Amino acid sequence: MADEPGALSFAMVGGDGPHSYRHNSSYQAGAVASAKALISNAIAEIFDVNHLTTSSGSIGIADLGCSVGPNTFITVKNIIDSVELKCQSHGFGSQVLEFQVFFNDHVSNDFNTLFNSLPNDRHYFAAGVPGSFHGRLFPKASLHFVNASYALHWLSRVPKDVVDKQSPAWNKGRVYYTNAPNQVIKAYSAQFARDMDSFLEARAQELVSGGLMTLVIPCLPVGTAPSQSPIMAVADLLGDSLLDMANMGLVSEDKVDSFNLPSYHPTPQELENLIKRNGCFEIVKLEPSGRAPVTKETAPNIQMFISHLRAALGGLLVEHFGVEIMDELFVRFTEKVANSSTLSPSSYRMMVELFVLLQRKAA
Amino acid sequence: MADEPGALSFAMVGGDGPHSYRHNSSYQAGAVASAKALISNAIAEIFDVNHLTTSSGSIGIADLGCSVGPNTFITVKNIIDSVELKCQSHGFGSQVLEFQVFFNDHVSNDFNTLFNSLPNDRHYFAAGVPGSFHGRLFPKASLHFVNASYALHWLSRVPKDVVDKQSPAWNKGRVYYTNAPNQVIKAYSAQFARDMDSFLEARAQELVSGGLMTLVIPCLPVGTAPSQSPIMAVADLLGDSLLDMANMGLVSEDKVDSFNLPSYHPTPQELENLIKRNGCFEIVKLEPSGRAPVTKETAPNIQMFISHLRAALGGLLVEHFGVEIMDELFVRFTEKVANSSTLSPSSYRMMVELFVLLQRKAA
Repeated sequence: MADEPGALSFAMVGGDGPHSYRHNSSYQAGAVASAKALISNAIAEIFDVNHLTTSSGSIGIADLGCSVGPNTFITVKNIIDSVELKCQSHGFGSQVLEFQVFFNDHVSNDFNTLFNSLPNDRHYFAAGVPGSFHGRLFPKASLHFVNASYALHWLSRVPKDVVDKQSPAWNKGRVYYTNAPNQVIKAYSAQFARDMDSFLEARAQELVSGGLMTLVIPCLPVGTAPSQSPIMAVADLLGDSLLDMANMGLVSEDKVDSFNLPSYHPTPQELENLIKRNGCFEIVKLEPSGRAPVTKETAPNIQMFISHLRAALGGLLVEHFGVEIMDELFVRFTEKVANSSTLSPSSYRMMVELFVLLQRKAA
Repeated sequence: MADEPGALSFAMVGGDGPHSYRHNSSYQAGAVASAKALISNAIAEIFDVNHLTTSSGSIGIADLGCSVGPNTFITVKNIIDSVELKCQSHGFGSQVLEFQVFFNDHVSNDFNTLFNSLPNDRHYFAAGVPGSFHGRLFPKASLHFVNASYALHWLSRVPKDVVDKQSPAWNKGRVYYTNAPNQVIKAYSAQFARDMDSFLEARAQELVSGGLMTLVIPCLPVGTAPSQSPIMAVADLLGDSLLDMANMGLVSEDKVDSFNLPSYHPTPQELENLIKRNGCFEIVKLEPSGRAPVTKETAPNIQMFISHLRAALGGLLVEHFGVEIMDELFVRFTEKVANSSTLSPSSYRMMVELFVLLQRKAA
């Protein structure tokens, strides 16, 4: 069950420090809040409590790409509260129900911090599961509910072609596909399609028939070029900062050329097509999460925004470039973001935060 | 699911350093080796593979008090190999069988190190489960095999009375019960009985009917006084070292008085009685593991022995006394052990390494 060669294993910045994900995940917390009612409703409407009476009476729940909390604990509590409510309304006493919750993330995730911050008043048995959710993580038919919030836009690897000097998709002088030629975008899109398929195949085996899966994925609105999205434009500014440092001899140009961000933002339509093509899941809902769109006025301030990115990308950057250049890189990066005209109000189009509710078809 | 007040949560020294359990657990590795054949035989003889066809086909295995490896991985591989062998001999293809392995230890255990050293070629789904095995850790009837090797002699807490100045069992001037009055020994023994009972109650709920549990517990031979056992005599020397340091003003006397080692070594008979009184498990085997007894000649050298103890006790000592005194404490302790006449060949009686095989009675 080893990762394939080239596969990435990275995680949000662990621990409790100023750059930790734990203290820099309020944006994702907003996603948790906006998905809360959607998840509760999904459970109230279609979670099948009747088949529970025939099984051992324990409910398996997994949060994939959980990082170190606290968002994952809030999501899990919401799922459990909703299932208990539904069971009570169907006449099952909640005391007979037991929940086992699996917190999953890459093996490099800081599980020690996660375990130390588990809520004391939890009503479930907790387990940590290290590994990539692009492969199998759990036994067959052992889960009833799976959640993955702000996780699936991470790719299992940088697309091979974008770091291949012989390929027309070689992404020289950039770290992302924001302003890249079409071949680069296609390579990213194809990698996302492969990853989505392996993700769905794995979950289809692990979920019981009728089991539910909720995904929250930041998508690119239809008709929006990647460069029109501030988050993606910002990634290019990170690339520019690295190139500046390469020009000054602070980091090698080859290092910069061989670094690419392993994430992709599909359009809602693209995502829908991939799920349909896979065929294991019924699409019950696929719609914007309903979170009020971020505008220039309501956007997090630049320092906060950079802190989020550092918590999310710090591990990857350190692994590739070493820890020494981080502070200088982020000073330069912050300056570029602050001065960027790309982020002017007129061009401010955010991602669509897409909520997807899937139900495992009968096998 | 919070720990009760006074409950201890401690773990072997984590990480990869010179004092880590990972590099100082060769004594426990010997236990793994000696239990290997006993576990294989137990599975070959009485593990019930027939009822697996009616369940989902996944086997739940837990190693309790697993620490950070590598011993736990060796034990788990042995269990899985043995189950697969048995299934093949009964005509079940091993490819339909899936294993989920739960590695449990206290929340302060270094799960990051454990996860990073998981074998790449493993044939199981791995999960880490933080928490005390004196309480429930898993859903009802979710496990088929439980192992706990060199774990159950750790108590869930220091017995209340031994740190109570008003109690006749107050253990002033000592850190263990090796040379203590009868009341102290009784307090330790009573705590062990309570812990054993809560351990068995929890496991009885978590194991399927017919499920197996193997324990390896270092026991005191019948008719041996605690002070005749070198391991226990050594604990007293640790107490003496601390008292010396208190006399020199390097640590407060109160601190020493309030420190006691939370472990207990029952006799085989005592253990047998507790399991019978609990009543949830059939005792299939309760016998010495068969490991060649350690003699003065084959005993690890003193430095190695001290290193083992430091890996096992370091976390507890640091939590109570702070990290500053550790190096000095262990220099003094090593000197006392080296000069001790208690450890002369004539008095060298080791623990009985007891192997216990239990089967969950039909509920």
